Amino acid sequence: MPYDSTAPATAPPLGVGMVGYAFMGQAHSQGWRTVGRVFDLPLTPALAAVCGRDPAAVRTAAQRLGWAAAETDWRALIARDDVQLVDVCTPGDSHAEIAVAALEAGKHVLCEKPLANTVAEAEAMVAAARAARERGQVAMVGFNYRRTPALALARRMVAEGRLGDVRHVRVSYLQDWLVDPAFPLAWRLRKETAGSGALGDLGAHAIDIAQHVAGSPLAGVSAQTETFVKERPLGDGAPAGELGAVTVDDAAVFTGRLLSGALASFEVTRVAAGRKNALRVELNGTLGSLAFDLERLNELEFHDHTQAAGESGFRRILVTEHDHPYLEAWWPPGHGLGYEHTFTHQARDLVHAIATGGRPAPSFEDGLQVQKVLAAVEESAEKNCVYTPVEQPATA
Amino acid sequence: MPYDSTAPATAPPLGVGMVGYAFMGQAHSQGWRTVGRVFDLPLTPALAAVCGRDPAAVRTAAQRLGWAAAETDWRALIARDDVQLVDVCTPGDSHAEIAVAALEAGKHVLCEKPLANTVAEAEAMVAAARAARERGQVAMVGFNYRRTPALALARRMVAEGRLGDVRHVRVSYLQDWLVDPAFPLAWRLRKETAGSGALGDLGAHAIDIAQHVAGSPLAGVSAQTETFVKERPLGDGAPAGELGAVTVDDAAVFTGRLLSGALASFEVTRVAAGRKNALRVELNGTLGSLAFDLERLNELEFHDHTQAAGESGFRRILVTEHDHPYLEAWWPPGHGLGYEHTFTHQARDLVHAIATGGRPAPSFEDGLQVQKVLAAVEESAEKNCVYTPVEQPATA
Amino acid sequence: MPYDSTAPATAPPLGVGMVGYAFMGQAHSQGWRTVGRVFDLPLTPALAAVCGRDPAAVRTAAQRLGWAAAETDWRALIARDDVQLVDVCTPGDSHAEIAVAALEAGKHVLCEKPLANTVAEAEAMVAAARAARERGQVAMVGFNYRRTPALALARRMVAEGRLGDVRHVRVSYLQDWLVDPAFPLAWRLRKETAGSGALGDLGAHAIDIAQHVAGSPLAGVSAQTETFVKERPLGDGAPAGELGAVTVDDAAVFTGRLLSGALASFEVTRVAAGRKNALRVELNGTLGSLAFDLERLNELEFHDHTQAAGESGFRRILVTEHDHPYLEAWWPPGHGLGYEHTFTHQARDLVHAIATGGRPAPSFEDGLQVQKVLAAVEESAEKNCVYTPVEQPATA
Amino acid sequence: MPYDSTAPATAPPLGVGMVGYAFMGQAHSQGWRTVGRVFDLPLTPALAAVCGRDPAAVRTAAQRLGWAAAETDWRALIARDDVQLVDVCTPGDSHAEIAVAALEAGKHVLCEKPLANTVAEAEAMVAAARAARERGQVAMVGFNYRRTPALALARRMVAEGRLGDVRHVRVSYLQDWLVDPAFPLAWRLRKETAGSGALGDLGAHAIDIAQHVAGSPLAGVSAQTETFVKERPLGDGAPAGELGAVTVDDAAVFTGRLLSGALASFEVTRVAAGRKNALRVELNGTLGSLAFDLERLNELEFHDHTQAAGESGFRRILVTEHDHPYLEAWWPPGHGLGYEHTFTHQARDLVHAIATGGRPAPSFEDGLQVQKVLAAVEESAEKNCVYTPVEQPATA
Repeated sequence: MPYDSTAPATAPPLGVGMVGYAFMGQAHSQGWRTVGRVFDLPLTPALAAVCGRDPAAVRTAAQRLGWAAAETDWRALIARDDVQLVDVCTPGDSHAEIAVAALEAGKHVLCEKPLANTVAEAEAMVAAARAARERGQVAMVGFNYRRTPALALARRMVAEGRLGDVRHVRVSYLQDWLVDPAFPLAWRLRKETAGSGALGDLGAHAIDIAQHVAGSPLAGVSAQTETFVKERPLGDGAPAGELGAVTVDDAAVFTGRLLSGALASFEVTRVAAGRKNALRVELNGTLGSLAFDLERLNELEFHDHTQAAGESGFRRILVTEHDHPYLEAWWPPGHGLGYEHTFTHQARDLVHAIATGGRPAPSFEDGLQVQKVLAAVEESAEKNCVYTPVEQPATA
Repeated sequence: MPYDSTAPATAPPLGVGMVGYAFMGQAHSQGWRTVGRVFDLPLTPALAAVCGRDPAAVRTAAQRLGWAAAETDWRALIARDDVQLVDVCTPGDSHAEIAVAALEAGKHVLCEKPLANTVAEAEAMVAAARAARERGQVAMVGFNYRRTPALALARRMVAEGRLGDVRHVRVSYLQDWLVDPAFPLAWRLRKETAGSGALGDLGAHAIDIAQHVAGSPLAGVSAQTETFVKERPLGDGAPAGELGAVTVDDAAVFTGRLLSGALASFEVTRVAAGRKNALRVELNGTLGSLAFDLERLNELEFHDHTQAAGESGFRRILVTEHDHPYLEAWWPPGHGLGYEHTFTHQARDLVHAIATGGRPAPSFEDGLQVQKVLAAVEESAEKNCVYTPVEQPATA
Repeated sequence: MPYDSTAPATAPPLGVGMVGYAFMGQAHSQGWRTVGRVFDLPLTPALAAVCGRDPAAVRTAAQRLGWAAAETDWRALIARDDVQLVDVCTPGDSHAEIAVAALEAGKHVLCEKPLANTVAEAEAMVAAARAARERGQVAMVGFNYRRTPALALARRMVAEGRLGDVRHVRVSYLQDWLVDPAFPLAWRLRKETAGSGALGDLGAHAIDIAQHVAGSPLAGVSAQTETFVKERPLGDGAPAGELGAVTVDDAAVFTGRLLSGALASFEVTRVAAGRKNALRVELNGTLGSLAFDLERLNELEFHDHTQAAGESGFRRILVTEHDHPYLEAWWPPGHGLGYEHTFTHQARDLVHAIATGGRPAPSFEDGLQVQKVLAAVEESAEKNCVYTPVEQPATA
Repeated sequence: MPYDSTAPATAPPLGVGMVGYAFMGQAHSQGWRTVGRVFDLPLTPALAAVCGRDPAAVRTAAQRLGWAAAETDWRALIARDDVQLVDVCTPGDSHAEIAVAALEAGKHVLCEKPLANTVAEAEAMVAAARAARERGQVAMVGFNYRRTPALALARRMVAEGRLGDVRHVRVSYLQDWLVDPAFPLAWRLRKETAGSGALGDLGAHAIDIAQHVAGSPLAGVSAQTETFVKERPLGDGAPAGELGAVTVDDAAVFTGRLLSGALASFEVTRVAAGRKNALRVELNGTLGSLAFDLERLNELEFHDHTQAAGESGFRRILVTEHDHPYLEAWWPPGHGLGYEHTFTHQARDLVHAIATGGRPAPSFEDGLQVQKVLAAVEESAEKNCVYTPVEQPATA
C-alpha cells in the first residue's frame, strides 16, 4: 500500500524548472507531479516554472501541466531563485548550451537523452558536470527505461550473479511510424537538427540498456545503416507534392563486443511494420537468461539454467511485487504500471541523490559514453562495417 | 500528443471531497490529480478535502495525496461548500449511508464498487440517486475496469457488431493472496464486514464486465462457492496461534445465461496460485471473438471470423493508438498505460457528465443490478446449484 | 537419440486388426506403423487387416495405410488367426457390439472414445472386459490426449505432489467448425447417431483429462447445454435449402466437484470462433499451478508457488527433453511432436501391457465412468442445473 | 481428411538407398516410411537398403527403421539395382564423395545440409548435378525447414506480395547444449571433422531460410564469431580431466544485405541458455510483417499493415488449415504437426520432382550458394568484420 502515515509531514522543497513542454516535457511533468504523492522523499519537488518560446503557449502549458510560472527565455528560468533543478526537455541540439549554463549557474541538471548531438558537445557537458560536482551539484541524463521496474530487476539479477557470465546481449528497438512514405520530412528526419535518425533516438536507448543491464560497456562495434525512403514530402508551407531529401537513417543494424567478452547484437528501426515500441532485450549467461519486451513492460522472463532441464523454461515474472524495484510504493501485485512511471521513478532517484549528495546514474559521463558508441557505429557504417573500437575512459 | 495549446485557459472548478484514503482512496487521488493535466475538461477538479477518522492520519494523508483539507467526520465533508462531488472510497458496509446522505445534501456522488453489501442497501441508494437526478445531480458507481482502454475498445467493437451475435461469454478473475493458510483473518474474510469473499470483490467486477462488454444482462445463474481454508489466524491482538472461522467464500464458479441468449461462465478465486490479478474475458460471436487479460492490460486479442480461415487468427491489438478509447490524450503508440489510468478515465467521464447533465455509466441502477446477480449466485449456491433467475428491472 | 543398437533384433509379432479407416483409423494406422520403429517393444505390431463395408474402398485403404489384408465384415476380422488385438475405430454406436464380440473371441481390444453412446452399452463392455481379463486379455479405451507428453508430465507432477492439494481444475475445449449456419446436418449433429454433440465429443476428452491429471474423479456436476443453430441444411440428396432439426448440443458449460474437494469448471463448444482445437487445462494447487493448451501441445506452463513471489511466475516448459514422458525415443530437445504422436504412444503402452499382462489405463471402467459423468451432465441440464451426483464405483 | 479412396491403387516403385542412420537417418526414415501413406504420390517409395560401416549395427538399424536390406559399403549401396535414389545422411565431410559417385552412377540424390564442408566440394557437387540433370536425374539438398508449413506459408505470402517490399530480415537460431563446459569435445566441435560450429550447423539453416522466405540472396555480410569455451574434456578413452582445444565457433553474429536491398541480421549460437531450438524469423515489409519461432512450429504471426492501425496487430495464424502448404493431407484444423513432418514433406516434393522431371528446390546450386555465404561470413570474421561480398552466380 503506497500510503505511509508515519512519513514526515513536510520535507524541504526542491524547486524544478523545466525547459520544453512537448512529449518529453509532458512526461516529465507527470513524473514531477506524482513522485511526492507516491514515494517518501527527503525533498518535496515544486513545479516552479516551465520555459518555452511562445508566450501564450507556454502560459497555457504551465497551467495545463501544473507549473506555477512560465518563462520564455531559458536563461531567465535558470536565473530564478525558486529553481534549484533545471530539467532539460528540448531537442538534442540545445542540450549542451542549456545544461552547461544551468550547471555554471549552480543548478542541478536533469537532461533528456541523448545527452547531445555530438561527442564534442557531450564532452563539454561532462566537463561542466564534473566542475559542478565539486560544488555539490548533481547532473543526470534521462535514460528513463532503466527505471522500468522489469529492467531494473533485470539489472539487479545480473548484478547478483543469477545469469553467471553473460555471453550474449541482444537488443532490438523496433517502431513503424516511418513505414508510410507520405510521412513528411519533419525535423527529426534532417541531420542538421536531429543529428541522426533511428540510431540516435532508438539506438541510444538500446545501447544504454544493453550496457547497463549487462554491466559492461561496449568495446567496439561493426555497423550498417540505411535510409529506405530517401525523399519525403516537405510538408508545412511547401508546395504540395514537393519532396526533400531525408538525411538521417531509417534503421541500423550492428554487432559488438562488451569489454566483458560478451557478443552483442543490435537492430533499431522506424520501419518495422506492426512494431510500435518494441524495445526487446535478451541476455544469455552461463547460469541463466533474461528476456524483456517494452510492449509488455510489466513482465520479465527468466530462465534459471541451474534447474533440471526437464522442469526449467522461461518463466514470466510479473514485475509487480512489493519487493521489485520501485514497487514498494505502488499497487498490489498484478496491478501493472505504464510508460510514464519511468519518469516518476527517475524523479525519485534524482531527488534522493540531490538530498544525499550522491552521484545519480546515468551520469553525464554515461551519456557521453553512449555518444561515443553512436559515433563508432556511424564511423563503422561509413567504413564498410569494419570493427571500430569505442574509446574507453582513461580510468576504465 | 496530450498537450493542446488551444484548450481553454480556465474551466470552472469542481470541488471533490473523498471519504477514505486507503488503497482505493489513493487510486482515486491519482485520478483526480491527473485528469485535468491530461484531458480537456469542462470543469477543473479541485481536491477540496479528504475524510478519515484518525485526525493525525487524515491530515498526513491529505498532505501526501494532495488534498487541500482534512475532515474526520464524513457529514462535515458533505456539508462543505467547496465540495460538489463526494467520492466514496470506504468499505462496502458504509457506502449506502454516506452516498444517500451526500445525494440528499445535493452533492454528486461517485461510489466505489460494489455499490453496497446488500440488495436492500443498493435499492435505497438507487432511490436516492433517482430523486437526486431530478435535481440535476449525478451518481456513478466505480467499476473502473470498464475504463481500461482495451475493455472499452472491446465494448465498442461488440456494439459495432464486429462479433455478430455473442454466443459465449467467459470471465475468470483469479488471484492468489489467500493460498497461504497463514494469511490472517482480516475484515475482508468476515461476512459481517465484507458481505462476501471473492464473490463480492472479484465477482462484482467479473459480472459487470461480462454484461457491459457483451451488452446484455444476466437472466439467471447456477453457482457453487467454496471456502477452502476454513480457519485462519486471528492476528492482531489475539493470542498467537489462535484461529477464527472464515465466514466468506474463497472462490466461486458459476454459469449463466444472458438475456440475449448467450451462455456465460464465471470463475473467481483468491487461491489460484501464480495468478496475481488475472481478470480474463473472452467473447465468441458469430462473426468474431475477443480475448483480454488484465495482467496484459494494454492488449486486446481479436479474431475476425469474416476473414479466410487460412489467414485468420487472434490478433494482438496493442491498445495504444490515438483513436482507441481515452488514448487521444496519452502517449504515442506502444507506450502503455497502467492500472491507475482507469481511475483517471473514470474521473474524466464523470466530470463530463456533471458538466453536461448527462447520466454517467455505470449508474447506481447498474450497481444494483450487479448486486442482484450476486444475490442470485449466493441463492443458487445455497440451493444445490439450481438455476436462479436474476430479477430484471420492470422497464427492461 | 531414438536408435538403440542393442535392442533385440526381433520381438514376437502382435497382429492388429482395425475396424474403420476414417479420421481415427488413419491416426491409429500412423501409430501402429510407427511405434515399433521408434520405441523398443516386447512385441512387434503387425498391421494384419483392416475392415470396412465397401469392398473396393477398404482394399484401397488397406494399401494406402499399410494393412496387409482387407475385410468387409468385422466378425471375419475378429475371427482371423493373425489378429490378436482388435482396434475399434468406428462411430460410437457400434463400439459395444464389436468390442464385446472381440473380447468374447479372446482378442485384446483397443476402443476409441467415447467408450459407447450410453451407460448401458458401456456397462456391458466393462462386464466383457472383466471376464476377458480373467483370461489374460487386455482392454483399453482411446483417450489419446493422456499421451500428449505435456499432459503426461502434468499428471506426473501432480502425482509427485508438486501442486500440493489441487483446489481448482478448469478445462475448456473450444472449436469453431459449427459457427457457420450453412454447415450441413451431418450424422454428428443427430442424436440417434451421435448420442450427443460437443458434450460427448469434446466433453468426454475434457472430463477424462480433468480427472486423470487431477487424480480424482468427479463427485457431481451442474450443467447447461445449448443448441445455438437449431436447424441446418439437410445436405446430400435433400432438396436444396431444405433444413432439418439439429438434435444435439452445440455447447455445454458445467461446474463440478472432484471427490478430492477441488472445484471444477468446464466449457466445451463447437461455436467458439477462432478456436480450432483449444483443449485448455489449468490446475491450481496449494504449492503450484499448471496450464496447458492443445494448440501449443509441446508446452506446459508451471508455476512453483514455493519460490519467492518476486522470482516466480508461470514458466514455459518445452516438453521435449529426453526425461519427459515418451520423449526418450524421439528427437533432440526443442524438436516438437505433433497430434498424431499421441496414437503412437498409446500403441506403445498397450503393447507393453499386452506383453506383461498389465492393466492398461484408461480401462473400460474408466471409459464407463466418463459416460456416467456425461449422463449426469445431461441430467443436470434437463433438471434446471441442479447439482447431480455421479454414481461412484462400489469399490471407490 | 487425408484418405482419398479414388487414389490410384498402385504407383510404380522408387527404390531409396540411404547412407547413415543416426539422427538424420532416423528422421529421413520416418519421412520415407510415412510419405506414401499420407500423400498421393506418382511413385511409391520403397526403403530398399541402408548403409553403415558396422555390419551388425547396420543390420539392426535396417530392421528397426524399416529398410529391406543393409550394406556396409556405400559404393555397394549405390550399385544396387533396386536403388534409384541415394539419400545421403552422413556427416558433411563425406557428402561430396558419395553424392558425386551416386550422380555419376545415374542415381537421383538427396543430400543432407550443409551441402558440403567447403565451397570447393560444393562446386564439384553442383557440376555433377548439372551433368546428371542432362541425363534426367534430380539432386536436392535437405534444408528441411523450408517444408515447415508455417515457413512455407511465409514464403507464399511474401511471394504473393502481402508484405510489399521487404526491408528487414531478422533470423536467430538459438540452442543451449554447449552452455555446460563439461560437455565433451565431440567431433562436432573439431574443425577437421565438422568444418565449423554453430555457423555451419545453425547458420546454414538460418541463411537458407532468410533468403528463401525473403526471396532474395545475400549480397554481402559483416560478421563476428566466438568460441566461449575454448577447451573441453576429451571424453571417450582419454584420461579423465584431460582437455582438448575447441576449434570451431560456439556462436556467430552477422549482418548483411539482400540483393533486394533489405537489411538482414543473424545470430546463431549453441550457448543461449534456455533456448532449445529457437529458429526465429521476422520479416518487415512495406505492407506487412511476419514472425515465426520453430519452438512453436504450427504458428505464423502476420501483421497486415494495410489495415487501420486501431484494429491491426500481429495475428497468430494456426497453420493447420487444409489450404495451408502440405496440410491437405493431414489432420483437421488445430491438430498440429511436429518436427519430423518436414522430412515427409521433403520426400513428397522430391518424389514429385523425380516423377515429373522437375527441378526440386533447394537445388545443389542453392546449397552451394549457402556455402558461399558461410565462407563470406568466416572471411569477414577473420578480417575485422569488414563487409564481404558474396560471390553471385554468373546468371544472377
